[in-house]
Amino acid sequence: MKIGIIGAGRIGKVHAESVTRFVKGATVEAIADPFMNAETEKWAKELGIANVYKDYKKILDDPEIKAVLICSSTDTHSPISLEAIKAGKHIFCEKPIDHDVDKIKQVIKALEGTSLKYQVGFNRRFDHNFRAAKAAVASGRIGELNTLSVTSRDPGAPPVSYIKVSGGIFLDMTIHDFDMVRYVSGDEVEEVYASGAVLVDPEIGKAGDIDTAVITLKLHSGAIAVINNCRRASYGYDQRLEAFGSLGQVEVHNDTDSTAVLSNADGVIAEKPKYFFLERYMAAYTAEIESFVSAVEKDTEVEVGVTDGLQPVLIGLAAALSVKENRPVKVSEIASKYGL
Amino acid sequence: MKIGIIGAGRIGKVHAESVTRFVKGATVEAIADPFMNAETEKWAKELGIANVYKDYKKILDDPEIKAVLICSSTDTHSPISLEAIKAGKHIFCEKPIDHDVDKIKQVIKALEGTSLKYQVGFNRRFDHNFRAAKAAVASGRIGELNTLSVTSRDPGAPPVSYIKVSGGIFLDMTIHDFDMVRYVSGDEVEEVYASGAVLVDPEIGKAGDIDTAVITLKLHSGAIAVINNCRRASYGYDQRLEAFGSLGQVEVHNDTDSTAVLSNADGVIAEKPKYFFLERYMAAYTAEIESFVSAVEKDTEVEVGVTDGLQPVLIGLAAALSVKENRPVKVSEIASKYGL
Amino acid sequence: MKIGIIGAGRIGKVHAESVTRFVKGATVEAIADPFMNAETEKWAKELGIANVYKDYKKILDDPEIKAVLICSSTDTHSPISLEAIKAGKHIFCEKPIDHDVDKIKQVIKALEGTSLKYQVGFNRRFDHNFRAAKAAVASGRIGELNTLSVTSRDPGAPPVSYIKVSGGIFLDMTIHDFDMVRYVSGDEVEEVYASGAVLVDPEIGKAGDIDTAVITLKLHSGAIAVINNCRRASYGYDQRLEAFGSLGQVEVHNDTDSTAVLSNADGVIAEKPKYFFLERYMAAYTAEIESFVSAVEKDTEVEVGVTDGLQPVLIGLAAALSVKENRPVKVSEIASKYGL
Amino acid sequence: MKIGIIGAGRIGKVHAESVTRFVKGATVEAIADPFMNAETEKWAKELGIANVYKDYKKILDDPEIKAVLICSSTDTHSPISLEAIKAGKHIFCEKPIDHDVDKIKQVIKALEGTSLKYQVGFNRRFDHNFRAAKAAVASGRIGELNTLSVTSRDPGAPPVSYIKVSGGIFLDMTIHDFDMVRYVSGDEVEEVYASGAVLVDPEIGKAGDIDTAVITLKLHSGAIAVINNCRRASYGYDQRLEAFGSLGQVEVHNDTDSTAVLSNADGVIAEKPKYFFLERYMAAYTAEIESFVSAVEKDTEVEVGVTDGLQPVLIGLAAALSVKENRPVKVSEIASKYGL
Repeated sequence: MKIGIIGAGRIGKVHAESVTRFVKGATVEAIADPFMNAETEKWAKELGIANVYKDYKKILDDPEIKAVLICSSTDTHSPISLEAIKAGKHIFCEKPIDHDVDKIKQVIKALEGTSLKYQVGFNRRFDHNFRAAKAAVASGRIGELNTLSVTSRDPGAPPVSYIKVSGGIFLDMTIHDFDMVRYVSGDEVEEVYASGAVLVDPEIGKAGDIDTAVITLKLHSGAIAVINNCRRASYGYDQRLEAFGSLGQVEVHNDTDSTAVLSNADGVIAEKPKYFFLERYMAAYTAEIESFVSAVEKDTEVEVGVTDGLQPVLIGLAAALSVKENRPVKVSEIASKYGL
Repeated sequence: MKIGIIGAGRIGKVHAESVTRFVKGATVEAIADPFMNAETEKWAKELGIANVYKDYKKILDDPEIKAVLICSSTDTHSPISLEAIKAGKHIFCEKPIDHDVDKIKQVIKALEGTSLKYQVGFNRRFDHNFRAAKAAVASGRIGELNTLSVTSRDPGAPPVSYIKVSGGIFLDMTIHDFDMVRYVSGDEVEEVYASGAVLVDPEIGKAGDIDTAVITLKLHSGAIAVINNCRRASYGYDQRLEAFGSLGQVEVHNDTDSTAVLSNADGVIAEKPKYFFLERYMAAYTAEIESFVSAVEKDTEVEVGVTDGLQPVLIGLAAALSVKENRPVKVSEIASKYGL
Repeated sequence: MKIGIIGAGRIGKVHAESVTRFVKGATVEAIADPFMNAETEKWAKELGIANVYKDYKKILDDPEIKAVLICSSTDTHSPISLEAIKAGKHIFCEKPIDHDVDKIKQVIKALEGTSLKYQVGFNRRFDHNFRAAKAAVASGRIGELNTLSVTSRDPGAPPVSYIKVSGGIFLDMTIHDFDMVRYVSGDEVEEVYASGAVLVDPEIGKAGDIDTAVITLKLHSGAIAVINNCRRASYGYDQRLEAFGSLGQVEVHNDTDSTAVLSNADGVIAEKPKYFFLERYMAAYTAEIESFVSAVEKDTEVEVGVTDGLQPVLIGLAAALSVKENRPVKVSEIASKYGL
Repeated sequence: MKIGIIGAGRIGKVHAESVTRFVKGATVEAIADPFMNAETEKWAKELGIANVYKDYKKILDDPEIKAVLICSSTDTHSPISLEAIKAGKHIFCEKPIDHDVDKIKQVIKALEGTSLKYQVGFNRRFDHNFRAAKAAVASGRIGELNTLSVTSRDPGAPPVSYIKVSGGIFLDMTIHDFDMVRYVSGDEVEEVYASGAVLVDPEIGKAGDIDTAVITLKLHSGAIAVINNCRRASYGYDQRLEAFGSLGQVEVHNDTDSTAVLSNADGVIAEKPKYFFLERYMAAYTAEIESFVSAVEKDTEVEVGVTDGLQPVLIGLAAALSVKENRPVKVSEIASKYGL
C-alpha cells in the first residue's frame, strides 16, 4: 500500500520514518510540503521516498497512492481532507480536524456514502501506558468507573506567537486529554466546568489564553472526570492518569529513559519523565499508522474515527465558554449551536 | 499539666492512650462520657486515669484540670466549648467545631479577650506525609504553587444512619481536605465548584447526600486546587496529595503496613494502603496533642486555631450550595450570610 | 509482671521506655547500671521506675521481679545470665549471648531442667518488613526457596575503639544477618564462604577487622544465601532482603520518614532510608519484649531461643575463619571444636 | 557499508531486521545459513536483502561486503572468525567467541597486525539501564566502588538437550553477568568463588550442570562483586544490578511493558518484568550494531573487543572449577593453563 504524506514538518517526518521502518505492507511513495527544501529532499531520498513535491495536489493526483497522511498546518486539515476525499484517498489526519465545528461537519458530510477510512491522529490512544489503563477499565478489573483523573502538563510553553494561533489551550493541548477521558471511560462527556489561570507566563494571558487549568467533566454514566493542565512542568512531560472504580483503581505513570535510581546523601533519585511528546509517544506514532493501514487493508473500522475528532472540539469549546462565563456548560449547548 | 477528656468514644480513647503513653508533661486526670460503662471504666483504670465521670461538668469544675479535649458528638462541640471557655480551660476540640457557622462565631466571640488556647482537631496537619508536602511547598522547593490535587477516598461508607446526621459529605469528610488545601497552600479559598454524584450506594442519595465528588477551588493567589472524594475505595484508605509549582512537584503517597513486594506469575504485588484513619493517622493523633500541650505550656500560638476551624466549614457550605445550584460559589457569599 | 533491666545504656533505656508505654501487663520495677548517674536517675523517676541501682544483684535479689532484660556490655551477658538463671529469673538477653561458644554452652546447660524462658535480642525478627518476608516464604507464596539475598549496610562505622572489642564484623554486625537468613529461610546454615575487604577505613584494617564483606551460605535444603555488608552507606541504613523461590520472589525495602517524592529539574527524589537502627527498629524493640512477656505469662516457647543465640555465633566464627584462610568453612567444623 | 550475516536463526534475524530498519549507512547485502529454507528466503526478500545463501563462504568471497555478523552456532564462531579475518572482513561475533580458550587465542593472534575490527556481542552493555548504571559509576557519582551485586535470572530453563551443549551455566548464562561486572566496575576479576545447586530441575543436574548459583568475585581494586543466577524466575526475566560506593549506591530495575499499576482488594499490582531477552534487550541489539558500524566507519576502537570476549570465558572456567573443587579459584590460575 502506497502512502503519500502531506506536510514535511516535524510530525510529517516522524510518520515518514516510522512507516518506512516499521509499518509492514506500507511504503511512503511521496511527500509534499510548500516549504520543501534541499535538506528535506535529501532526507527523503535517504529514506527511499520516491517523490518529493511542493504541491500536495500531485499526491492527490497519483492513482498509485491509496492513502494520505495529512500533517500540514491545522488550518489546512479540513480543506485538504475535503480534496482528498474527492480524490478517493483514505485519510489519516493529524488532530484537530479543525477548530471550526462547521468545517468538521463538512468533512463528515463529504465522507458520507463513501467507503473511505478517516482516522484522526489522537496518538495517545496507542501509548502502551494509556492502552493498559483502558484495558483495565474496559475489562471490568476496576468495576464501575466513578472518577477519572488526568494529569497532563507540558515541560514548557510554546512561543506566544504559536499560542495566538493555537485555538487556545483547550483546543491545542487539552484536546488530547478530552480524548483520553472518552477513550479510557468509553463514555461521553455531558457537561464541563473549567477553571483557568495565567500562572506560567503573563504574555500568554495577554494573548488571550490561559496556561494552567483544572477541568471537571460530567460523563453520561454519572462518573466525574477531572483534568489538570499546565504549560510548564520543570521536571519534564507529565502524562499520567488514574481511574477509580467500584472494585479498584488503575494508574499509569510517566516513562523514563532508564530505571536507574541513585541513592546518596541527597536522597533516592530516579530519572525525570521523558522530555516531551516525541520522546514519550514515538512508539505510539508508529502504532497509530499501523492501525490505520490495517483498517484500510482489512476494511475494518478505524480506531479513532471522525466522530472522535469532533467530540473533543465540542468539549474544548464548552471548556472555553465555561472559563469565559465561569459556569458549567453542557456539551449539548455547544453542539446545538452547530445543529448537532 | 492535667487534662480532662470529654467523650470516651473511639477518638476519646485514642487521645487518652496517646497522652498517657507519649505526651511528656501531660496526664489524663479525668474522662467523662454520658454512656460511661464498666468496660470503659476498667480501661480507664488500667490506663491510670484517676477520675471517671458520666457528667463532663465535673471535669470543668476541677480546678486542677488545665485543659480539656472535647471528643463528644459533633452537636455538643460548640456548647461544651462555650462552657469550657467560661470555666477557663484551654480547649482541644475535635473537628468540626460545629456545622452551624453562627455557633462557631459564638465560640470565637467567647474566646475574645481570654488568653485561652483553642485548637481544632485537624489531625492530618500532623501526619508525616502531609507535613513533608507542606514543608516542600513552604520552603519554596517547588517554586510558586499553581495546582494542588488532593485524593481522599475512604475504604467504605459509614452507615446511612450516620450519613443522615453527618452534615453531608463536605462537612463530614471533605472538611479535612479543605483543611489540607489551606494547610499545604498556605492560602485561602475564594471560590468553589463542586461536582457530586451518587455512585457508591443509592441509599446515600436517598438520604440527601452524595458519595463521590470532585471539587475545584480557586485560591487567593490564583492557584487552583482540586479534591477528589469517594466514600468507597476497595483497596483501602487513599490519602494522597500532589502540589505543582513553577520549579517542581511534590507528591505524598499512602502508608503501608510493610514494604514487602511479592513478584509472581500474577504480577509485582505491593501492599494495600493502611486500612483507615486510625491505622494511617495514629501518630498524628499523638502529635497534635503534643503540639496543643506545648502551645498551652509555652503560651504560643496553636497550630490549628479557631479560624482554621471556621474556614473549612464555610468552604464546605459553599461546596454544598455549588452542587445544589450547579454553579461556582464564592466563599464570601457564604461568609456574608453570617455577617463575616 | 515486674521486670528489672540490667544496663541503662542506650538499648536499656529503649527497652525501659517501650515496656512502660506499650507492653501491657508489664512494668519496669528496677533498673541497674554500674555507671548510674543523676541524669539517668531523673529519667528513671520520670518514667515511673521505682528502683534505681548501681548493682544489678539487687535486681536479682528482688523476689517481686519475675524477669530481667540483660542490656549490659556484651562481655557480661553470659555471666549475668548464669546468675539470673540461678536467681530463677526469666531472661531476655541482648545479642550476642557471648562471643565465646563455651560460655554460651554454659548458659544452655544452666537452663536445662529449669522452666525459665530465655529470649535473645534479635530484634529484626520483629520488624514489620522482615516479618512480611518471613510470612511470604513460610506460607509457600514463593514456593521452594532457592536463593536468599540480604543487604545490610550501616550508615557509618563505629569508632575504631569499639571495633577492637566488637568481636569483628561477623559477630558484631553480620550476626543479625545470619539470624535473618535462619529466620526467613526456616533453615540451618551448613557452610560459609566469606569474602572481606577494608574499603571504608584503613584504621579498621589496622584493628584487624574488615569493613566490607560478601558472605555466601549454603543451607541444609540446598538453597544458597548471600549477605552483603558494609560499615558505611552514605544514603542511610540499608536493610533489605530478597527471597527467591520456585513460584516467585519477595523483597522488602527500607523504611523512610515519609512517602514524599519531589520532582524537579534534578530528578524524581524520594527520601533516604531511616537513619539507623533506633529509627528503623523502634517498633521491633517493643514487639520483641511483648513477645517475651507473653511467652513468660502464657508459658509458651520464646520466639528467639538460646539456640537461635548460639547458631549465628557459630556461623560468624565460620565466616571469620573463611576470610582468614580463604576457603569455605562448614559450620560443623566450628561446632565440633566446641563439642557440639 | 554492506554487511553479511552468517546464521539466520533467531539472533541473525534480529540483527538483519535492526540493521535494515535502524542502522544508518549500513545495509544487509547477504545472509547465509546451512538450513536456509523457503520461509526464511521469503522473509529476507521482504526485508530487501539482495542475496540469500546456504554457504557462508559466498559472503566471505563477496568483495562488496565489508563486515560480517557471525550469528551461527557457538562451535562455529571461532573457525568462521578465522576465515573472515583471512577474507579481510570486519567482524561482529555473537558471544561467546568459543568455550575453548585456545581457539579464542587463535582469533586474537589472527587479528594481530590487521586493522580489522572485532566486536563481541555482549549486548547488555548497550541496554539503557545498565548503561545508566555504568555512567553513574564511571562518573564518580557513587564514589569508590566497594560492592557490586548482579541479579540475573531467566524466566525458564532451556531444554536439557541445549544445556548439554551449552558449556554449562557459567559459559552460557553467567558469562553475560561476568561481562556486566567488568563493564560496570571498569575493573578486572582476580578470584572467583562459586556456589551452585540443582534446585530447578533434577534433569539439569543429571546433565552435569547446575541451575542456581551465587558467585563471589574479587576485583583488582579490592571491591567485591556478587552474581545471583537461576534458570527459572516465575515472574519473568530478572535483570537487575546494584553498585555500592563510598558516596552512594545506584541500582537498575527491570523494564515492564507499561507503567500501569492496579490497586484492588488483593494489593497494589504492577506489571511483571518483560518476558525474556528479546523483549528486554531489543533496543540493545540495534545499539550494539550501530556502535560496531560506527567503529568500522570511523576506524575507532570497538566498544566490546576481543579481550572482552576472552576474559568472561576465563572467569567462567574459574567459576566452574570453583564449584567442582569447592574453593576460590584465581582467574590467573585458569589463564596460566593457557599460557596467558
